[in-house]
Amino acid sequence: MAKPIAEKTRELLREVSAATITTQLFKRGLRNVFMGGLKPLGAKARPMVGEAFTLRYIPSREDIDVLEILGRADHPQRRAIEETPPGHVLVMDARSELRGATGGGILMTRLSMRGVAGVVTDSGLRDVAEIAELPMPVYIREAVAPLNLVAHHAVDLNVPIGCSGVPVYPGDIIVGDGDGVVCIPRHLAEEVAAEGWEMERKERFVTLKIKSGAPLFGTYPPDEKTAAEYLAWLDAGEPGKA
Amino acid sequence: MAKPIAEKTRELLREVSAATITTQLFKRGLRNVFMGGLKPLGAKARPMVGEAFTLRYIPSREDIDVLEILGRADHPQRRAIEETPPGHVLVMDARSELRGATGGGILMTRLSMRGVAGVVTDSGLRDVAEIAELPMPVYIREAVAPLNLVAHHAVDLNVPIGCSGVPVYPGDIIVGDGDGVVCIPRHLAEEVAAEGWEMERKERFVTLKIKSGAPLFGTYPPDEKTAAEYLAWLDAGEPGKA
Amino acid sequence: MAKPIAEKTRELLREVSAATITTQLFKRGLRNVFMGGLKPLGAKARPMVGEAFTLRYIPSREDIDVLEILGRADHPQRRAIEETPPGHVLVMDARSELRGATGGGILMTRLSMRGVAGVVTDSGLRDVAEIAELPMPVYIREAVAPLNLVAHHAVDLNVPIGCSGVPVYPGDIIVGDGDGVVCIPRHLAEEVAAEGWEMERKERFVTLKIKSGAPLFGTYPPDEKTAAEYLAWLDAGEPGKA
Amino acid sequence: MAKPIAEKTRELLREVSAATITTQLFKRGLRNVFMGGLKPLGAKARPMVGEAFTLRYIPSREDIDVLEILGRADHPQRRAIEETPPGHVLVMDARSELRGATGGGILMTRLSMRGVAGVVTDSGLRDVAEIAELPMPVYIREAVAPLNLVAHHAVDLNVPIGCSGVPVYPGDIIVGDGDGVVCIPRHLAEEVAAEGWEMERKERFVTLKIKSGAPLFGTYPPDEKTAAEYLAWLDAGEPGKA
Amino acid sequence: MAKPIAEKTRELLREVSAATITTQLFKRGLRNVFMGGLKPLGAKARPMVGEAFTLRYIPSREDIDVLEILGRADHPQRRAIEETPPGHVLVMDARSELRGATGGGILMTRLSMRGVAGVVTDSGLRDVAEIAELPMPVYIREAVAPLNLVAHHAVDLNVPIGCSGVPVYPGDIIVGDGDGVVCIPRHLAEEVAAEGWEMERKERFVTLKIKSGAPLFGTYPPDEKTAAEYLAWLDAGEPGKA
Amino acid sequence: MAKPIAEKTRELLREVSAATITTQLFKRGLRNVFMGGLKPLGAKARPMVGEAFTLRYIPSREDIDVLEILGRADHPQRRAIEETPPGHVLVMDARSELRGATGGGILMTRLSMRGVAGVVTDSGLRDVAEIAELPMPVYIREAVAPLNLVAHHAVDLNVPIGCSGVPVYPGDIIVGDGDGVVCIPRHLAEEVAAEGWEMERKERFVTLKIKSGAPLFGTYPPDEKTAAEYLAWLDAGEPGKA
Repeated sequence: MAKPIAEKTRELLREVSAATITTQLFKRGLRNVFMGGLKPLGAKARPMVGEAFTLRYIPSREDIDVLEILGRADHPQRRAIEETPPGHVLVMDARSELRGATGGGILMTRLSMRGVAGVVTDSGLRDVAEIAELPMPVYIREAVAPLNLVAHHAVDLNVPIGCSGVPVYPGDIIVGDGDGVVCIPRHLAEEVAAEGWEMERKERFVTLKIKSGAPLFGTYPPDEKTAAEYLAWLDAGEPGKA
Repeated sequence: MAKPIAEKTRELLREVSAATITTQLFKRGLRNVFMGGLKPLGAKARPMVGEAFTLRYIPSREDIDVLEILGRADHPQRRAIEETPPGHVLVMDARSELRGATGGGILMTRLSMRGVAGVVTDSGLRDVAEIAELPMPVYIREAVAPLNLVAHHAVDLNVPIGCSGVPVYPGDIIVGDGDGVVCIPRHLAEEVAAEGWEMERKERFVTLKIKSGAPLFGTYPPDEKTAAEYLAWLDAGEPGKA
Repeated sequence: MAKPIAEKTRELLREVSAATITTQLFKRGLRNVFMGGLKPLGAKARPMVGEAFTLRYIPSREDIDVLEILGRADHPQRRAIEETPPGHVLVMDARSELRGATGGGILMTRLSMRGVAGVVTDSGLRDVAEIAELPMPVYIREAVAPLNLVAHHAVDLNVPIGCSGVPVYPGDIIVGDGDGVVCIPRHLAEEVAAEGWEMERKERFVTLKIKSGAPLFGTYPPDEKTAAEYLAWLDAGEPGKA
Repeated sequence: MAKPIAEKTRELLREVSAATITTQLFKRGLRNVFMGGLKPLGAKARPMVGEAFTLRYIPSREDIDVLEILGRADHPQRRAIEETPPGHVLVMDARSELRGATGGGILMTRLSMRGVAGVVTDSGLRDVAEIAELPMPVYIREAVAPLNLVAHHAVDLNVPIGCSGVPVYPGDIIVGDGDGVVCIPRHLAEEVAAEGWEMERKERFVTLKIKSGAPLFGTYPPDEKTAAEYLAWLDAGEPGKA
Repeated sequence: MAKPIAEKTRELLREVSAATITTQLFKRGLRNVFMGGLKPLGAKARPMVGEAFTLRYIPSREDIDVLEILGRADHPQRRAIEETPPGHVLVMDARSELRGATGGGILMTRLSMRGVAGVVTDSGLRDVAEIAELPMPVYIREAVAPLNLVAHHAVDLNVPIGCSGVPVYPGDIIVGDGDGVVCIPRHLAEEVAAEGWEMERKERFVTLKIKSGAPLFGTYPPDEKTAAEYLAWLDAGEPGKA
Repeated sequence: MAKPIAEKTRELLREVSAATITTQLFKRGLRNVFMGGLKPLGAKARPMVGEAFTLRYIPSREDIDVLEILGRADHPQRRAIEETPPGHVLVMDARSELRGATGGGILMTRLSMRGVAGVVTDSGLRDVAEIAELPMPVYIREAVAPLNLVAHHAVDLNVPIGCSGVPVYPGDIIVGDGDGVVCIPRHLAEEVAAEGWEMERKERFVTLKIKSGAPLFGTYPPDEKTAAEYLAWLDAGEPGKA
C-alpha cells in the first residue's frame, strides 16, 4: 500500500467542495469522477476525506451465502471492518443493487470506533437511524433492510472497483460533502487540493460580491477589475468571509 | 378475516427492527420481504406494526375514471378508507407507478382518526407536508401531486397483491421503521416476533461492547466468551441499555 | 413576451396547492402537468409561483464545451441568470440527465438577488447545502457535483421545452410546494387560480370535519347537508381555520 | 361473460392495424391503449384478434410457490390454459417482471391446440424457439428461461388487470400486429372496427399516391381533390391495391 | 445551411463501420458519439450516410395536440417530411419517450421517395413491417403503435438536439450500420472518412490473418512484421478480400 | 483450474434446454441462475456449453485507458482472447453498461478460431453482423459500436464475477440456447445434466401428447396413466420424436 497522503493535502481537501474537485479534474481531462445518487446519512455537514480501501461484492448464491459464513474471520466483508486503515474510506462496489444491504449499525459503529474516515456504498445500509448518529460520515444510495446475503457475496478486498459508475483504485482519495462523493486519482490529489483550495477562496470572494448585488458578467468568472479587487480583498485579510 | 394477532406479538414487534425481521425470515427461507424504495413521511421514528389490509389498483381509463366516481360509496379506494380495521396497515399495490397519487391529506387524516396503524403505498401521496404531521406512520415512494384518476383505478379490496415487488396477503404482518417496510407471512409472525426480540436484545449488548472498543471477531457473532458475558449482562439487568 | 399575470392571480396561487391545481387541470382535460421526481431544496415550505422562463440544454460535446465558454457573455446558461425576469421561474430542460449539474451556488445566489421567483431543473445542482439557505425556492432531482460541461450544453432561451416529462411553454405559470412542481398553461391560470382557491377553502372545512370525527362518505365529497354546513361556516368567518 | 363479439367485427379488425386502432381510440379520448415493449414471437405477420381472458400474477413466496403446486388442477395458471375460451386472447399481468417466465412450450402448445386466438404477457416466456413455430400469435417482452415460480404466483382469473401499463378488462378486444398489441374497450369495438377499416382503405390509397410521387400536403390528410380521386378509385375497384 | 459534404467523403464513409468511426473520434477526444439502443428496421445491411436534418419534439399537451393540427402545412413534423433535403438523414429528438410514435408508413414512404438518405429517431415508429420494406435505412428504439400526438409535440426544425444522449448539430454527418448510429461533427467528417477507410482496409487484412490462424499478439495491433506483410498485401492487390 | 467436465456431461447438456436447467437448479434451492436480457447473435440454434472463464471490467478512466494499452500483451482483455481454454465460455462482467463495447469482430474471430465454446457479455459487442456469421455462439445485451475504452477497463481474469446479475465462478458450467444463458454451479453440473436430460425426454413425450390433443391435467405433470404410457413409449423406441 502506498504511503498515506500528506496531512497538508488532507487538510486542504477538507475545505474544498466535491463540486470544485470535479472542476479541477475536468481541467485535467477527467469527467467521470462523481458517484451519482449517493447521499450522506444524517444531517452532518462534516466533510469526508480519506484514501480508498475497497470491498467488492458479486451476487450471492443460495448454497454459498448462508448465515454461518458471517462468523468466519476470513469473510471479506468482516475483514474489511477490521482492516480498513484509520483515516481511510471504505468504498464498496455492490453493483448499485438494492435488494440487500452492505452493512448495518454494528459494523458501522466498529468502523467509526476504529477511526475510519468514512464509508461509501453504491447499494444501501440497514439500521440507518442508528448509523446517522455516528460521527463518521456515511454515503449510501438508500436504506435497505435485508441482510447482505440476500443479494451480495463479498469477494475481494482492495482491488480496483467501480462504485456507482466511477472507477476507484485502492489509495485514490475519496472526498464527500453535501453534494455527494468524488474520487481523486492518487497521483492528482496534491495539485487538486492546492488549486482547488485557491478556487474555493476565490469563489468565496465572488459570492460576497454577488450577495452585495454584483452582476454575473465581470464577476464570475472575474474580469481584470474583479481580479484586482480579489487581490486587495486577500491583502485586507478576506473581510466578510464566513 | 383471521382473528387479530396477539397483542403480545404486536408489542414485541414494535421493538424489533425491519432489518432483524429480514434476518429472521431469511433463516426460514424467505428472501423477498422488503418493499424497497419506500420512505417514511415525516421525521417520526415511531415503528409501524399491523395486519395488512390491501387495496389493488390497475391503470386508469379515461372513460371510466372520471371525477364523479370518487363520490360513490362503493368506490374501492374510498371504501378502503372506511373499512381498513383499526390496528391494521393499509397496503396499496399501485404498480410503483408515479404519475398519479394514491391518496392525499383528507383520506390519510380519516385513516389516522379511525385508528389505522399505518399506510404503505408503492406509488406516492399528495399533500405530503400535511400527512407528515399525522401521528400515523405512512410510507411512500415519493410525493406525487396529481389525483389518483390520472393513473390509477382502484379495483379490489383485501386480495393478495404485490407491493414494491413483495407478495402481501391480507392478514400478513407489516412492520416499518427508519429502514423501510417488511412483510411477515401471518403464520410466521409469532415466532419471528419472539426470536427477533431476543436477537435485538443480544445486538444491543453487542453494540455496547463495540462502543466500548471490542473488535468484531469474537463479539459479532459472539464467541463463547462473549456469550457468557451476555448472560451475565442479562442477569445484571442489562446495564447501559438505552 | 406576454404581459405579467395579474398580481391577484399570483396571490391566489400562493394559497393553492400543487395537488389542487392538478385536479383543476384534470377537470379541463389536462393530465400531464406534474414534473415528477423533483424535490424542494431546504425545509422551507414557501410556495413558488411565477411565469416560466426556459433554458434548454442538449448533451455536451468535448470540443465545444470547454471551460472557456463559461465566461462568454452570450453563453445561454449565463444569460439565463441575468435575463430571467424578476417574479419568473427559471425552468431548465436538461433531459433528466444527472451526470452534470445545471448550476451551482453562485448562479443561484445571483438569481435570488435579482428577485427571480424560483428555479426548476429536471437534472441537479451543485453546492446544494449553500442553495438550501437561499430564500428563493429551488426544485431539483438530486444533488449533482460535476459542472454542467460534463454533460450539458446550454443552447436556447425561452423556447418551449419538456421538463421532467411535462410540456412547458414560456409564460406558463409554474407553481411548487411540498409535493413538487406543476405547470399551468398560461391561458388557464386565472380560472385555475380562482376555482382552485375556492376548492382549497372547501377542503379546509372538510379537513376540520374529518378531524372532528366525521366519516368520509357525506363529507368528502360533501353531500347536501355538509354543503349547507360549509356555507354556514363561511358565514361564521371560517372558525378553526389554521 | 359477455357474448362473443360479432364475427364481422372480428373480420374487420383482422384488416385494421394496431396503429390505426390507436388513432381511432385517441379520437374517442383514450390515450393509454398500447402495451409498449411487447414483441411478436416468430416472423409471422398474422394479425391477432380476440376477447381478453386475463390471468393475474403477484410476486412468488418461497414457502407457497413450490414445484408441487403446478400439478394442482386449481392452479390458476394451469386453469387459464384449459379455460381461456377458443377465439379469446390470454392476457397476463406479471408486473413486467422478467426474473421468471409466465409459461413455456407445452402450455403454449396446448393453448394453440385449443383454438385460443393468441397470448400476451408483459413478462416473458421460456422455450421461445419452440413457441415461435406455433400458428398462434404470441407477444412477450423477452425470452426468460426460469420457471414462473422463481418470480410469479398466479392468483386470479379474468379480473381487470394492468398489462404493460394498460388497463385490460375481461372481454376487451385485443389486437396485435407487427407494431405490438392494443386493447379496445369492449363497448367501442364495433365502431372502431368499422371506422378503422375505412381508414385503412383510405390509407392504402394515400400510400399508392405517395408511392407514385405525390407530396404529403394535399394527399395526407387528403384535400378535396384527393378525396374526390379516392372516391373514383373506390368506384374503379381499388386498382393497384396489394 | 452548409454546403453538402464532398461526394468522395460520402463514398468513403459508406465503407467505414460505425465501430471504426467511434475509434477515430475517440482518438480526437470525442467519446459520446453513439446513439445507443437504436436498431435498424429490416434485415438490410445497407449503410446509411448523410448530413443531419433535425426535428425536435417536446411532450404533447391535450389542448394543443389534437388531430386537426396534422393537416396544417406549417406543422413541423409534416414540414420535416417535405423539407429534409435529399441525401440528408432526418434525426428526431423525442426524448427517448416510447408512449407515442414519431412517424409511420406513409411519412417514411414519402421520405424514401424524396431521396432522403435515412431516418433516426430515439423513440419509435408505427407500421414497422411496412417501413422495413423501404429501401431507405431507418433506425428506431422499438415499434410504437400510437400516433405522435399521444406523447409528442413537434416544435423545431434543424436546431441542435440530443438524440439518444448524443449531441447532433444540423449538418453533422450521420452514419449507420448493423451496430447502430454514430454522429460525426461536421468539421471532422473528411479526416475521419479518410483515416477510417484506411483503418478498415488494415482490419480486413488483420481479419484474413486471424482467420488463417494467426494469434492476436503481433497481428492486432500489427507489429513490424505484420505491418510489412500488410504493405506487401496491398502491393499484391489485396488478395482474398471479400 | 479444475479438471475439465466429463465429455458425457457436456454432451448431455447440449440436449438440455436453459429452461429445464433452471428448473433443475430451482429444485436444488438456486433461483438466480439466468442472465436476463442477453440474446444470441445470429439465427443459429446451436446450443452453447462450456466451463466459465471470466473477465472483469471496471469503469474506464481517461488517463489510463488510452489506445496504446490495447497493444500490450498483458492487457487483460487481450489476454482473455488468447487464454480462454478451448471448450470454455468467456464470460464478461461489464456492469451491464452499454456506452462501450466489450469486443469486436477480430477478437471474436480469434476466439472462434481457438476453439472457444462461446462468449457471454452483459454489455455489448461491435461488428455484430460479422460476429453473427461465426460458428461460435455469442450472447450480448445489444449491439454497441464504441470501443471498450470509452466505458470499460479490463482488470481481472478468472475471478468470481457477476454477469447480468448472476454469480459466475470460474469453472461453473455455462449453457445457452434460444432463451438465453444460465450458469450451473460446477459441483451440480453432473446431476443437473443427467436429471435434466431425462426431464427433456419426458417433456418431448408430453409435447407429443399435447399435440395429439391431450388436455393439460393428467398429462403435464403426468398422472399415473400418462407415466405408464411414457414408459411404454420409451420401450417402443420413442416413436414420433423429432
